[in-house]
Amino acid sequence: MIRAMIRGTLLLRGGHVVSVHTGETFRADVLLDGDRIRAVLAPGAAELVAETVHDLDGRLVVPGYLDAHMHVESSLVTPSQFEVLALPRGTTTVLADPHEIVNVAGRDAMAWMVEQGRRLRLDMRWAVPSCVPSLHGFETSGADLDADAIADMLRWDGVTTLGEVMDYRAVVSGDPRTLAIIAAARAAGLRLDGHCPHLAGADLNEYLWAGVDSDHTKNSAETTVAKARLGMVMMLQEKCLSPELVEALLALPVLPDFCLVTDDAAADVIADRGHLDHIAHVALGAGMPPLVVLRALTLHPARRLGLDDRGVVAPGRRADLVVLRSLASFTPELVICAGEVVHVEELAGSREPGGAAHPFADTVRVRPELDRLRDWRVELPDGEHVFRALRVNPRDTYTEPAEIRLPVRDGLVGWAGRCTTVTVVERHSGGERTQVAPVVGVELGAGAFATTYAHDCHNLTVVATSPDALVAAADRVIGAGGGMSLVLDGRAPVDLPLPVGGVMSDAGALAVADAARSIRRAIGEWGWRHANPFMSLTTLTLPVSPQVKITDRGLVRVVDRAWEPAVLPS
Amino acid sequence: MIRAMIRGTLLLRGGHVVSVHTGETFRADVLLDGDRIRAVLAPGAAELVAETVHDLDGRLVVPGYLDAHMHVESSLVTPSQFEVLALPRGTTTVLADPHEIVNVAGRDAMAWMVEQGRRLRLDMRWAVPSCVPSLHGFETSGADLDADAIADMLRWDGVTTLGEVMDYRAVVSGDPRTLAIIAAARAAGLRLDGHCPHLAGADLNEYLWAGVDSDHTKNSAETTVAKARLGMVMMLQEKCLSPELVEALLALPVLPDFCLVTDDAAADVIADRGHLDHIAHVALGAGMPPLVVLRALTLHPARRLGLDDRGVVAPGRRADLVVLRSLASFTPELVICAGEVVHVEELAGSREPGGAAHPFADTVRVRPELDRLRDWRVELPDGEHVFRALRVNPRDTYTEPAEIRLPVRDGLVGWAGRCTTVTVVERHSGGERTQVAPVVGVELGAGAFATTYAHDCHNLTVVATSPDALVAAADRVIGAGGGMSLVLDGRAPVDLPLPVGGVMSDAGALAVADAARSIRRAIGEWGWRHANPFMSLTTLTLPVSPQVKITDRGLVRVVDRAWEPAVLPS
Repeated sequence: MIRAMIRGTLLLRGGHVVSVHTGETFRADVLLDGDRIRAVLAPGAAELVAETVHDLDGRLVVPGYLDAHMHVESSLVTPSQFEVLALPRGTTTVLADPHEIVNVAGRDAMAWMVEQGRRLRLDMRWAVPSCVPSLHGFETSGADLDADAIADMLRWDGVTTLGEVMDYRAVVSGDPRTLAIIAAARAAGLRLDGHCPHLAGADLNEYLWAGVDSDHTKNSAETTVAKARLGMVMMLQEKCLSPELVEALLALPVLPDFCLVTDDAAADVIADRGHLDHIAHVALGAGMPPLVVLRALTLHPARRLGLDDRGVVAPGRRADLVVLRSLASFTPELVICAGEVVHVEELAGSREPGGAAHPFADTVRVRPELDRLRDWRVELPDGEHVFRALRVNPRDTYTEPAEIRLPVRDGLVGWAGRCTTVTVVERHSGGERTQVAPVVGVELGAGAFATTYAHDCHNLTVVATSPDALVAAADRVIGAGGGMSLVLDGRAPVDLPLPVGGVMSDAGALAVADAARSIRRAIGEWGWRHANPFMSLTTLTLPVSPQVKITDRGLVRVVDRAWEPAVLPS
Repeated sequence: MIRAMIRGTLLLRGGHVVSVHTGETFRADVLLDGDRIRAVLAPGAAELVAETVHDLDGRLVVPGYLDAHMHVESSLVTPSQFEVLALPRGTTTVLADPHEIVNVAGRDAMAWMVEQGRRLRLDMRWAVPSCVPSLHGFETSGADLDADAIADMLRWDGVTTLGEVMDYRAVVSGDPRTLAIIAAARAAGLRLDGHCPHLAGADLNEYLWAGVDSDHTKNSAETTVAKARLGMVMMLQEKCLSPELVEALLALPVLPDFCLVTDDAAADVIADRGHLDHIAHVALGAGMPPLVVLRALTLHPARRLGLDDRGVVAPGRRADLVVLRSLASFTPELVICAGEVVHVEELAGSREPGGAAHPFADTVRVRPELDRLRDWRVELPDGEHVFRALRVNPRDTYTEPAEIRLPVRDGLVGWAGRCTTVTVVERHSGGERTQVAPVVGVELGAGAFATTYAHDCHNLTVVATSPDALVAAADRVIGAGGGMSLVLDGRAPVDLPLPVGGVMSDAGALAVADAARSIRRAIGEWGWRHANPFMSLTTLTLPVSPQVKITDRGLVRVVDRAWEPAVLPS
């Protein structure tokens, strides 16, 4: 018998392929031709010819990873710089929901992000943000997208999904604005991604009935299973991946087809720990079997995104591949994207931002007299009053309602030296509106952390223990055109400028990772100890994240979708 | 807390739902609203209100079944009558590939089938036949569809798939006609269904590379696993479901997501044994766990068909449901399709065909002097010669090449009394061309079975042991405008007229089931003992079914896609 000869562009020789369908690991040479896999054959089954040959010496070949739920802006860099960080970690396809920058700059920002995404080697697909602002009527954002605005974007090239429907209470209660947005996505035949922490029973039924069928928020093991049971695609991010949850999933008669996702990963975290490969590491640590992890990184997100052409190492599929030493770690030894080997240095070099002006430079619009921020003014008689506080914890972004007694004199709350506060200043249209609330559950030194990256409306938010530091940190951030600044007594300030809409840096990925690392370390030294300090600080303002949050308009009781009184009967 | 009230049209109370995602069985009331599932809730979790209430008394609720690969014509009835048979068995969605009638009457037949399908309650989706004829250049059909003809149909409403690419050798060898058809389907963004028995190694790689990624033919356990390993969606029909195969699948580290399909099921088989519920029964008998069977009937085919809106019992999904006593049998106690309870009698009554003229009535065009069929003429000298014979078996449609010595005198083969023959008469354009071959592996009484339903070109095909019976059976079938007839010495002939294109009856489902049952019994009594006598007899002519078959043009060596000599060197 004449042995067939098959020609291609790149040959991976002497490796083992892991099948995401059967779980088998089998000896195979993998021939690529352009951006597709040409052949996957036992050594010797045919003559495979290519100009470039890599000897894998027994290493494993698995499909490139897909992130079914993430926000590029959370990496604090622009799409091109996100690629520098994430692609060498094996992430070859992402579904990006740009709801951070779109809350700042609306449709123009969506268009800019999509255009940036087109220039990448990794495949960036798009979700149109569904909740801009996240809780309509409870906060002020830089854009306000109704069903008509969204319907237009749903037709754009590369858009596959309606982004996380975060205002789940609006869905459950039949809010017409939200239902119109959902109807637009259903009419366009798109998938609808969800965000519904702890939703259960009749309310969960309403959410599913509306057509939203995924969730990536942190739920109890019981709620996670209850959602999966009804066909919700569960997307598990780092904070979800507890041993208890993994145990509960593995105990089921059938393991549901969940995805592993990053949601929000900052530049330094990606650089230091990894992207999806890091989530895989966390999942393994929580007891998830390697083959389950592999499928949750590849086959399952490919299905969720409706991408039949990837997530599997097989002829005809997209040549997005990751080479591993073993399934004990998902951090790649080699990454191939669209048929080309990824070289980190080359990527970083070719993508280093030039001197060109970045867009969305003038989005931090706050009235200059910042000294006013020292004063927490209330309309209360002199004396002690009980204030509603946000209790934070070191694990996740859950905030419990707490109480704290503070003195009031001449309409001013005497908070300095007594507690930590969070101040939110509307920054899109002039910075007049300001709200303040106490924060409990942390012991901080004298200082303040200011940020214009604060989910999802990205108003200027300052967590402070000292009025001086509060003003100084706010001033630094405003001066930089947006970003994060930490001002501690007796130390040099630490800054991370984010001048692209106040949410992304215009600098290179590695420089941003350095700056993020520095400010993260300083935040910890200040006393804000948390598994994810950026997220815990910047979601104090997210009124769709239980239980009580603060916006530029007031305190919100998330689960009831209602205002929470700032002052309680004493 | 105020209990929510949810209104719908039909309430299934007191049952247990089986989750195809987690495998759990859980107590739940299921509320339908129109053709959708409105709520799936633990009893008491909300007040569910509907005009019609069914008490399920602990029975199980599972999704309606989906058949991802089937041919309506194999049931020998028209679509409306197929529904009478299959819907009460729980089949609520099918992907139908009408390649039988389209081989007879081309595009008009496809249009007629699609139009018939639109009138049904079950959801009939369509695959455009890719191989008409099945082996271009080796047989004569009533239509010949090239890429242009197919491309047009691929755009029709309800079409989701390019039907089984049966000429797998043409794909592997790069035949331009076949590759153009495949390119048309890929350009249209459709799925490509396969048919590639035993294909492996480099050839299988070529087939996958072309974009065909499913198979429903019978393969060894080893080949089935090898195909699944590379992401092929394996579709298992009755003849595939051996204990060995099930054991091999269950032994894998991960169980691939295969489908259970019917492919070809005659009216009497559906009436007597069942449709997909029967395949499920066979799968259970071969050792497949009930939850695996359930997923292969629901979730997996729904995914394959790209139908996110079904295959799961959950709010928002299509209200296609089957009620079972337990997972020990998948034969329904109650079927709900698009929100309405299926009543067999009502369905049969409303769908009983009237007296209207059926289409494709004049498709059996054979020259009347049938006595010529007695004579098997060859251009050979007098004496004994070795003829290539088809060896059949009682299990499947596989035919091995065999040899038989027969005398020749004056150019006539002396077969009568010595062997069984199969005669194929081209019937689309006049019935001149005739081929004959011996059949071994069966011991038959004196008689003949004639049929115009003979895969896939449906030429007039007669299996005979006596020249008189051969002519008589052919005459009966031609006189009926197509169909099947069995003529046995000393017995009344048994007929199953199929005047719609010579492949479907114009009669009601139950009458056709009766006739099919009678002729099936008579075939068995004749001595043709087979698990599926209709398929074994009517695929002697299918030149894409290994190993050697006969068409109106000659013998075909299937695996080599080449002519097989009728006479061998002696």
